[in-house]
Amino acid sequence: MTERDFIAHALAPLATSVAARGLADDAAVWTPPLGRDLVFTHDVLAAGVHYLPGDPPSDIAWKLLAVNLSDLAAMGAMPCGVLMGLGLSAAEDNAWRADFTAGLGRALTHFGVALWGGDTVTGLAAAVLGLTAVGWIEPGKALARSGARPGDAIWVSGNIGDAGLGLAIAMGNASPDAALLKRFRRPDPRLALGRALVGVATAAMDVSDGLLIDADRMARASGVALAIDFAAVPVSAAAAARCVTLAQRVALTTAGDDYELLFTAPAGVDMAAISGGTKLTKIGSVLAGAGVHLLQNGVDIAPERLGWEHQD
Amino acid sequence: MTERDFIAHALAPLATSVAARGLADDAAVWTPPLGRDLVFTHDVLAAGVHYLPGDPPSDIAWKLLAVNLSDLAAMGAMPCGVLMGLGLSAAEDNAWRADFTAGLGRALTHFGVALWGGDTVTGLAAAVLGLTAVGWIEPGKALARSGARPGDAIWVSGNIGDAGLGLAIAMGNASPDAALLKRFRRPDPRLALGRALVGVATAAMDVSDGLLIDADRMARASGVALAIDFAAVPVSAAAAARCVTLAQRVALTTAGDDYELLFTAPAGVDMAAISGGTKLTKIGSVLAGAGVHLLQNGVDIAPERLGWEHQD
Repeated sequence: MTERDFIAHALAPLATSVAARGLADDAAVWTPPLGRDLVFTHDVLAAGVHYLPGDPPSDIAWKLLAVNLSDLAAMGAMPCGVLMGLGLSAAEDNAWRADFTAGLGRALTHFGVALWGGDTVTGLAAAVLGLTAVGWIEPGKALARSGARPGDAIWVSGNIGDAGLGLAIAMGNASPDAALLKRFRRPDPRLALGRALVGVATAAMDVSDGLLIDADRMARASGVALAIDFAAVPVSAAAAARCVTLAQRVALTTAGDDYELLFTAPAGVDMAAISGGTKLTKIGSVLAGAGVHLLQNGVDIAPERLGWEHQD
Repeated sequence: MTERDFIAHALAPLATSVAARGLADDAAVWTPPLGRDLVFTHDVLAAGVHYLPGDPPSDIAWKLLAVNLSDLAAMGAMPCGVLMGLGLSAAEDNAWRADFTAGLGRALTHFGVALWGGDTVTGLAAAVLGLTAVGWIEPGKALARSGARPGDAIWVSGNIGDAGLGLAIAMGNASPDAALLKRFRRPDPRLALGRALVGVATAAMDVSDGLLIDADRMARASGVALAIDFAAVPVSAAAAARCVTLAQRVALTTAGDDYELLFTAPAGVDMAAISGGTKLTKIGSVLAGAGVHLLQNGVDIAPERLGWEHQD
């Protein structure tokens, strides 16, 4: 299939919004909502780096969209549309491309997001997939990493570490578990929670590289210390059953790909009232000082390596 | 240099707008201009496909920005900001990255465009560079490929085919010429002309894959025929000196990377009055019918291959 056929027959049918102009022009044209700020993010997934070549193409499409929507969720934004840059190799054959676009279509529908445009390039050595997501937020209300203040409580959504176990399963390094594998391959961006945190959270970000390293980034951005109660960090029953030693449990806090929201809020806020049913756990307190501390019986057990950071 | 150091020390200093938030949050936040539509485009440049590994990194940065701004120009839009997805390999060493970011900074300043954010990924087999550009346009005024009507005149800016010769020079297949090489490596998006064409042109697009193939696309989108007078196609003195046979002259009309604007307008419009000093040439007429025709003494001499189209 040529690039033109792929765009005309596989991508254009997904680009149903007026803004996309049927992918027939040089660019998309969109009328932004009145009285809103716009939020923009762009994340890249590379084969062999962010996903495994054997991952189902429909799941890769889901993840490409989901990791970008997670960035919008972290800012409190409502997603509107996306542009996609698909760099493909010979390994992404027609069957791969068909499954990818089918999965992309389902994911766009699931999240209510429009495909506005993008670019497709073939003949690469390995696939590199980029996506720009655009959302809106009330003016001046975007959440930031920099607003955590001493005395705030630290919260996290969902469970921590499942996706890291899912990666191990996908790599054949751990026994199968469909639910854990799904947490790695099909992360669920916390969009509703992000919207609910607008005007409530003092700081927010998504957990993409590991709870501890991301908490450390929030601490740096805010100029405070984040003291996390190790015993309070929420883990799933499946993760708890697999991780019984202290080292295994700590490893859950340095694993990436959770795409949960980490946020701070004044101590008195009733989170149950705004959670909308999303599991929220208070995991610690913001203190004066610097860095992240993982406390067990008053002792900081944070490991030297806080999470996933690519060295080059 | 780690990804974090590269972002903090090389990219963040270029992200000076309020919208970029110092690249310290999960996403950029921007207040769009009141009463404007927004225009979005995303183009990918891959090493070895869209540029040569030996091209100067600062020129690659320029081209990455320029080809996207050319899409905005084709819609009549004014550029505002960009997000960048940098997929890098070991070949893009620290010296490459320093030259790339220096060139990017100069290009952003030259075009008056803000760097809002993006993503950097290292460890790839070969570089893949994506960029999303955002601009504004008066509501409902975006130019399209689909508006050409029988009786309209066909116009093109600048000269056609210089960049194709520049590519041959860059590949070592032709004798050096700095001006032609620059046309390949540092295309000049026709932003001022694009703005001037708003409300004037009936159809517009940029010439990226070759005059004939892009004219054919405009003909298809508009449901008309584009009859191009071969003798009228503007070529530079340098190109004319190199291309003396008919085949060589025709090849200029199928070469890519010109990034000139191809547009149609009612026959009576005084283009000199709105050109703002940009060289504009009337190269033919829109007719009822279909496809592109390259006419010499009334004979259609259009070759079978109209331009650059990647087969996979």
